Amino acid sequence: MRAACFVGNRRFEVVDRSMTVPGSGQVDVDVAYAGICGTDLHAFHGAWDGQIALPAVLGHEMSGTVAATGEGVPGWAEGDRVTVNPLDWCGACAACNAGHTHICHDLRVMGYAFPGAMQSRVTVPARSLVRLPDGIDLELAALVEPTAVAVHDIRRAGLLPGERVLVVGGGPIGVLIALVARAQGADVVLVELSEERRRLAASLGLRVLDPALEDVVTFVGDWTESAGVPVAFEVSGSPGGVETAVQALAVRGRLIVVAIHGARPPVDLYRVFQRELTVIGARVYDQPAFDEAVRLLSAGEIPARSLISSVVPLDDVASAFESLEQGHGMKILLDCSDRRPRHA
Amino acid sequence: MRAACFVGNRRFEVVDRSMTVPGSGQVDVDVAYAGICGTDLHAFHGAWDGQIALPAVLGHEMSGTVAATGEGVPGWAEGDRVTVNPLDWCGACAACNAGHTHICHDLRVMGYAFPGAMQSRVTVPARSLVRLPDGIDLELAALVEPTAVAVHDIRRAGLLPGERVLVVGGGPIGVLIALVARAQGADVVLVELSEERRRLAASLGLRVLDPALEDVVTFVGDWTESAGVPVAFEVSGSPGGVETAVQALAVRGRLIVVAIHGARPPVDLYRVFQRELTVIGARVYDQPAFDEAVRLLSAGEIPARSLISSVVPLDDVASAFESLEQGHGMKILLDCSDRRPRHA
Repeated sequence: MRAACFVGNRRFEVVDRSMTVPGSGQVDVDVAYAGICGTDLHAFHGAWDGQIALPAVLGHEMSGTVAATGEGVPGWAEGDRVTVNPLDWCGACAACNAGHTHICHDLRVMGYAFPGAMQSRVTVPARSLVRLPDGIDLELAALVEPTAVAVHDIRRAGLLPGERVLVVGGGPIGVLIALVARAQGADVVLVELSEERRRLAASLGLRVLDPALEDVVTFVGDWTESAGVPVAFEVSGSPGGVETAVQALAVRGRLIVVAIHGARPPVDLYRVFQRELTVIGARVYDQPAFDEAVRLLSAGEIPARSLISSVVPLDDVASAFESLEQGHGMKILLDCSDRRPRHA
Repeated sequence: MRAACFVGNRRFEVVDRSMTVPGSGQVDVDVAYAGICGTDLHAFHGAWDGQIALPAVLGHEMSGTVAATGEGVPGWAEGDRVTVNPLDWCGACAACNAGHTHICHDLRVMGYAFPGAMQSRVTVPARSLVRLPDGIDLELAALVEPTAVAVHDIRRAGLLPGERVLVVGGGPIGVLIALVARAQGADVVLVELSEERRRLAASLGLRVLDPALEDVVTFVGDWTESAGVPVAFEVSGSPGGVETAVQALAVRGRLIVVAIHGARPPVDLYRVFQRELTVIGARVYDQPAFDEAVRLLSAGEIPARSLISSVVPLDDVASAFESLEQGHGMKILLDCSDRRPRHA
């Protein structure tokens, strides 16, 4: 089997490894596709040096087929088409005890805390497997995980049909939020600096704004008869994005904090007070959101396939990361299938 | 009649004025007591110079008796004991149209946008009158308005009986929040820097912390078996208070932003994301909260009377403000009754 090992300092080594054997309660999955996420780019940039053990096999967005099952794994057979919920929780902390395992105090995510999908075969706990229905192929299935993020974000917002929604940041998660919100009947505007990303979003029928050319808050005022929007998603991770979202909200508006903010951005808490806003943190997804993402994609309710900019061989992992880093491409999938002869 | 006029630059002039006559839909109230609020102190400090017309009669916390009624004011008679909801709204903006008149885009508050209660007689719209039941005397009734703030804050929090609550800031509003929360069955800890205020809160049976001596987040960890508190109220108005409250919250915890933050404090949005916190703005009160405050005080369900540090004549308004500014006293009431002979 082949594995793309991130060795730090923006470098990967793609190596041959001996095949694994699944232990009790485990399943080996032949990985078909692994998506590259913005969080993987953070790792590539060294943001998490010291927090993940190197060399690391990244990858928490994936699809594949069951290759082998360990002891005590009923219900799964070789060839079953699957995706994997990459979250692993302790089961003992206050969050887990409260039933919120996805925000476990010691949450471990596949591809960071333990080896991920950027390899031709990965061993996962059987409980993390999610069966794929017929309507979804393996390429599209690699988008289940980011779609689950969008579903969860929208559920945290308590989005209602017909509501006006501002999405600040048009990377893969921002576009997926916009698409899922629209599929639920919302009226969506997406704000994104990158022309390439705006063009893609527009091609999917989304209304887009370039914040470098247009004052977003003024636009929202015109759009909403000075009321402001009831819902905004902060997906940019920038202090300016936070400020825009806060100022764009109507009284009792909800701001969903989706992006990861490393530093502490200034937040207009006077506005939060004055307009009785609600700022809601949303992290990953719970299992119902994950299952809903499978359903949405299988039923073809959102045009998510268009987010796949390219599919490249696992061996090209480094250039794929570099391309995304330079702002090219939306979602790049790594083809992880091991098609090379075993004994060349 | 006598009126305390704030003339700017930390100065008051207490002057005689000719009696008013209520217009159509208006009522004249003989003011018994007017409370001094932290927001009045902001005005005293000049924070709102240019936003309020000077000279200004401050005062939005009050009690009194109906002195005269104008045309078209059924149901009210001279001598009726009342307090006044000081909010006035436009009735036409997006907030009003949404039914949230208390966060009207153009909210006008008695004592700032129009003359307040720091005078012996005040003219108010009849719709702002709230009848006092027998169980509440006029001194205690002057606390209805700040108690309504506390009730509204707790309703915004969705507080449940038995929940652990951290109140950051122990001025009058912070202590009232703590008392109302306790009355609803919550387990409350109050954080306050001032020894005088801590002592008062402790005398009411509240558990208090001095953040200068004790690390609040460490305390909360010990108190909650490392879970954090489900609810925190930020009533300090300081960036440090915001930080403490955010770090003290459990997963899915709710932070209620009560205080007025002039600048934009840094907020740990990573924590908001990571723990899926909810930050909720809460401003003044709606009418149901105001009515509940009357009921709470009338029924004696909270020991609010102890917050009254002193009752001083209206003529002593300047020294009362200076005393509060120097950190002495919790709630000072001005006795606004005009007992001096009219033609001395």
